[in-house]
Amino acid sequence: MNNLGIVKRNIQRADKAAVEALSRFGVATIHEAMGRVGLMKTYMRPIYPTAQACGTAVTVLLQPGDNWMLHVAAEQLQPGDIVVAACTTDNEDGFFGDLLATSFKARGAMGLVIDGGVRDVKDLTEMGFPVFSRAISSKGTVKATIGSVNVPVVCAGALVNPGDVVIADVDGVVVVPAAVAQQVADAAAAREANEADKRAKLASGVLGLDMYKMREPLAAAGLKYID
Amino acid sequence: MNNLGIVKRNIQRADKAAVEALSRFGVATIHEAMGRVGLMKTYMRPIYPTAQACGTAVTVLLQPGDNWMLHVAAEQLQPGDIVVAACTTDNEDGFFGDLLATSFKARGAMGLVIDGGVRDVKDLTEMGFPVFSRAISSKGTVKATIGSVNVPVVCAGALVNPGDVVIADVDGVVVVPAAVAQQVADAAAAREANEADKRAKLASGVLGLDMYKMREPLAAAGLKYID
Amino acid sequence: MNNLGIVKRNIQRADKAAVEALSRFGVATIHEAMGRVGLMKTYMRPIYPTAQACGTAVTVLLQPGDNWMLHVAAEQLQPGDIVVAACTTDNEDGFFGDLLATSFKARGAMGLVIDGGVRDVKDLTEMGFPVFSRAISSKGTVKATIGSVNVPVVCAGALVNPGDVVIADVDGVVVVPAAVAQQVADAAAAREANEADKRAKLASGVLGLDMYKMREPLAAAGLKYID
Amino acid sequence: MNNLGIVKRNIQRADKAAVEALSRFGVATIHEAMGRVGLMKTYMRPIYPTAQACGTAVTVLLQPGDNWMLHVAAEQLQPGDIVVAACTTDNEDGFFGDLLATSFKARGAMGLVIDGGVRDVKDLTEMGFPVFSRAISSKGTVKATIGSVNVPVVCAGALVNPGDVVIADVDGVVVVPAAVAQQVADAAAAREANEADKRAKLASGVLGLDMYKMREPLAAAGLKYID
Amino acid sequence: MNNLGIVKRNIQRADKAAVEALSRFGVATIHEAMGRVGLMKTYMRPIYPTAQACGTAVTVLLQPGDNWMLHVAAEQLQPGDIVVAACTTDNEDGFFGDLLATSFKARGAMGLVIDGGVRDVKDLTEMGFPVFSRAISSKGTVKATIGSVNVPVVCAGALVNPGDVVIADVDGVVVVPAAVAQQVADAAAAREANEADKRAKLASGVLGLDMYKMREPLAAAGLKYID
Amino acid sequence: MNNLGIVKRNIQRADKAAVEALSRFGVATIHEAMGRVGLMKTYMRPIYPTAQACGTAVTVLLQPGDNWMLHVAAEQLQPGDIVVAACTTDNEDGFFGDLLATSFKARGAMGLVIDGGVRDVKDLTEMGFPVFSRAISSKGTVKATIGSVNVPVVCAGALVNPGDVVIADVDGVVVVPAAVAQQVADAAAAREANEADKRAKLASGVLGLDMYKMREPLAAAGLKYID
Repeated sequence: MNNLGIVKRNIQRADKAAVEALSRFGVATIHEAMGRVGLMKTYMRPIYPTAQACGTAVTVLLQPGDNWMLHVAAEQLQPGDIVVAACTTDNEDGFFGDLLATSFKARGAMGLVIDGGVRDVKDLTEMGFPVFSRAISSKGTVKATIGSVNVPVVCAGALVNPGDVVIADVDGVVVVPAAVAQQVADAAAAREANEADKRAKLASGVLGLDMYKMREPLAAAGLKYID
Repeated sequence: MNNLGIVKRNIQRADKAAVEALSRFGVATIHEAMGRVGLMKTYMRPIYPTAQACGTAVTVLLQPGDNWMLHVAAEQLQPGDIVVAACTTDNEDGFFGDLLATSFKARGAMGLVIDGGVRDVKDLTEMGFPVFSRAISSKGTVKATIGSVNVPVVCAGALVNPGDVVIADVDGVVVVPAAVAQQVADAAAAREANEADKRAKLASGVLGLDMYKMREPLAAAGLKYID
Repeated sequence: MNNLGIVKRNIQRADKAAVEALSRFGVATIHEAMGRVGLMKTYMRPIYPTAQACGTAVTVLLQPGDNWMLHVAAEQLQPGDIVVAACTTDNEDGFFGDLLATSFKARGAMGLVIDGGVRDVKDLTEMGFPVFSRAISSKGTVKATIGSVNVPVVCAGALVNPGDVVIADVDGVVVVPAAVAQQVADAAAAREANEADKRAKLASGVLGLDMYKMREPLAAAGLKYID
Repeated sequence: MNNLGIVKRNIQRADKAAVEALSRFGVATIHEAMGRVGLMKTYMRPIYPTAQACGTAVTVLLQPGDNWMLHVAAEQLQPGDIVVAACTTDNEDGFFGDLLATSFKARGAMGLVIDGGVRDVKDLTEMGFPVFSRAISSKGTVKATIGSVNVPVVCAGALVNPGDVVIADVDGVVVVPAAVAQQVADAAAAREANEADKRAKLASGVLGLDMYKMREPLAAAGLKYID
Repeated sequence: MNNLGIVKRNIQRADKAAVEALSRFGVATIHEAMGRVGLMKTYMRPIYPTAQACGTAVTVLLQPGDNWMLHVAAEQLQPGDIVVAACTTDNEDGFFGDLLATSFKARGAMGLVIDGGVRDVKDLTEMGFPVFSRAISSKGTVKATIGSVNVPVVCAGALVNPGDVVIADVDGVVVVPAAVAQQVADAAAAREANEADKRAKLASGVLGLDMYKMREPLAAAGLKYID
Repeated sequence: MNNLGIVKRNIQRADKAAVEALSRFGVATIHEAMGRVGLMKTYMRPIYPTAQACGTAVTVLLQPGDNWMLHVAAEQLQPGDIVVAACTTDNEDGFFGDLLATSFKARGAMGLVIDGGVRDVKDLTEMGFPVFSRAISSKGTVKATIGSVNVPVVCAGALVNPGDVVIADVDGVVVVPAAVAQQVADAAAAREANEADKRAKLASGVLGLDMYKMREPLAAAGLKYID
């Protein structure tokens, strides 16, 4: 009847080439290429400014104040995965620190996206292990109540299925469904090619008003210029 | 009946010399020199720690999820201006990114203060284009509904008239009405001159209690010392 | 009937050796060693990323928009103290800036923890004076209403008695009662010794599931593996 | 590649009898019967204290400040449906008022759950049209940008598929997947039968400690009684 | 240089007939008639559900934790006025209770709109004195620092000039500049007349899609119907 | 080293007569009589508008998502007690519902103050069991991790010792230390006697400016009247 208490071992990860292609773009570009869906809430922030990560999601559903399932998730990690942890309720406890990061890194994880708190930020920064979280908290957690691994989760407002591509940088966190990963990467590439030309024009002083031919629709919408 | 749908082309900018004078002071000093008014809410933060800006306000009134008016504003920019964007409702969408920054910079803008979200933070940081915002968000915006340019706006709790001086740094964002810009700059200078002496005394171990002659009023207010 | 309007001069500070011992550990470690109590809320953040401080608490109870008691507190400071300022209500005003920091530093203070706002962040950063606060705000404060110094306060959700050890870093702020300072330092040391070994095992690929012998209790709790 | 710009006309609604069965239980009971999943965030509140609703979800994905899709959704409504509206970003605008309520009611809708704002609260209360929202706001919305109807949405942290059963009352809003509606109703009934007996015992003074046999596990967990 | 420390005695109040006319409409209707400007933030809520008020603004600028200016404002009140109190910083203290309400009522005040806290809610409800506030708080305030009366203020995000019409009900608080009060009242009346007809059509089952002729623009915008 | 895992059976409750005396006053009056300390944060709200309670505190320290200790607390309740539940971290889960309320009521409890969530609001309202909480949530909790009963706790920003008097109504929640309960009750009575006279004067049109003799200090503070 529900997904609590389950660990799914075999998940369908997005195509490696598509993940690699997506890793070359920023979150804002990918979000646009997606048609502006799949973005997590803005409260998800990198624990250090240069943090960035791209990988295939191993999802975790945590219970408040309990990080047991992160240990369960470690075993399911393959190189290139990114852990995406949601919680059954809003909770800022420090579910994750340098020990789990060491374990995740040893398993080849690309980073962690967690709708909760983390700690040992100095160590994580020195390790270069990218983490995106809702809070930083020293509050430790117990290992008493089970959740799930590799079930669909809602993390910071976005639906994440195991195997989806998750990309995170200073602009936020975006989720690309595995099935459209290559298509989105292609759209992102097209968008970026297109932007270089626009950027050059704008840098030369051309106005967006003219470049995007906005003057007529603005007038039609009723915009009035006064002195 | 209202200010929606208007672009005012000719605005009275604060005196250049006064703006230049104000640019030498920090926000906290100017806010004190103003008599402690004109400060934006504390949720307005720089997108990188060293961001700072001072300029004459070109104001923008945005609609939620719609950045059309930022393109309209670009045309109204003169070198030394700073764009101040309010929204008709609380909204954290990514109204602004590296393309608009390129355009604003080409027009001579000193920076952006926006009661909304921005994206392309890495690019903006590399460009050295200072932005102060309520959020960072990759969420794109449409160009469908008109707002206004160069009307009085309430941005993050502060009233901003076009042409006012807006100063922003790591301590926040403050608005100086154009008519009192030089007067505030003078008061800021006087205040800073005054502070150097105080700082030296305090550094030598003199107590504020004595320097400010607080002991008597504290006793009069009923403060009791116990052991 | 209450603690308002009082300055307590003689307080029992935690043992110097214990404070020194605690200063070698991070907040997360100490919080664990304490048995997971004594942590302030997560909204308390350092004003610059590398800020860290450890000292014996001189406590302050402020009134909203009023920093009078910080001046009173300066006189009570001894080298090695840290100022812990609570407020009678939620308030983000800029109670503290570079002048008070100069005074506190001259008195030997190790830093400031304040459930309120601060300003002059650039100066404080250059001075290397560590501050942990709920906000950054240029809003100045008055000196009109008395509070207290060296009474028990609730700061950001944690009870702080004067003389307690307060440790703050990028992971948050924790309070160690003076009476158990050495005991907590010993527990922290034991914990850290223990962690080095765990870290090495996890780095080598051993799973927490096995290292912590979690497989049996997880199965007992009903966790199911599916393919 | 994404679900924007789509209206799905034929959706599989949960079985009528199961919906009817679920309508007899409160949200807290159903959430327990579900295994504690499917709950929306606590910021979703009824606009009047006695509001309650149960129906099959017609889902809507709104754009910020734009209620066009609510009009599109009206046509898809069948008697017994409940409208569940999510937004592509956090937005509190007044998407819904008495006119749309009149239209929804005429189509047989049971109520509205919206992760946004509503207005005309007095009229809606008098009409007895139950609404659960994140805010009350008079701020009007435009009809300029398309979203979707009857696609899967994340509303206030919960995944909702068109046709799912949504139950809302003063305790919150819960989503029951169509496929398990009857099963959850049965579990809710079993739970409630079970509770009557517990309630009687507790009312007579029996302690939960004894009724649930907690004394032994509490002692095993280390709980100590002192005098 | 600024407006602190000033009481303006002679203010230009909106025309009585226009105020009377506006008092017959709800906030949502007036906000629409204004062109969707002048609305306060949604956190301003009535202290009891049926509270509603309409009057000419006597504005107050408070200091945090200090209600001195409310006493100063009382003297400036004329029958038909509504007090609109802003604060120089975010503060939830209980600036207002039954004693001040008794005084305001004796002076003919229609109610209070305050971007702060209030107390004695039970008494205020029994008195039928409508209050709209950001919080309910028992925290008392001092009388130590001056602010202003009858200067322009920004209250909960809206600019209010003394003499403006302020209308408040369960849908929120809106500000109508004195100069356009009659014009807005006329527009509100026109809007309401117009709504009765729409309501009847929608109640009879006509769809907004057809009544507002939305099908063509929706198709032009790219909306697709699928089965 | 800490207070986790402890149940204290013998606590010193405030004097019954003093509690009875305090129960006749509102929270705002008592808070003033206390000297304006001991107030909980404003987010603590009654679950129904007429809820009010006064009793001697049995304190509980909960773990997030875990209500085990509420069952432990039930056994420690004596007629006239009020349960005050804090949590080791911010958590809005539904720790409490009609079953526990039935048990608490059977033990003679006067109500519950909880820095967390509760559910079954309709039932609790019908039972007339007053609850003050930070949230309403259907989210159930586990019984897996121990906390404490009858240790000092910080609840919603206020320190509560077991046996203290806790008074709660629509204006908030205040804590009166057991040792000063009678003294505070006397001060509250004096204050209320004093207020009746003030109320009558204000109702007759006397201004606070005159009644409190504020004109001179306002002028001394620099207040200027202009026309």
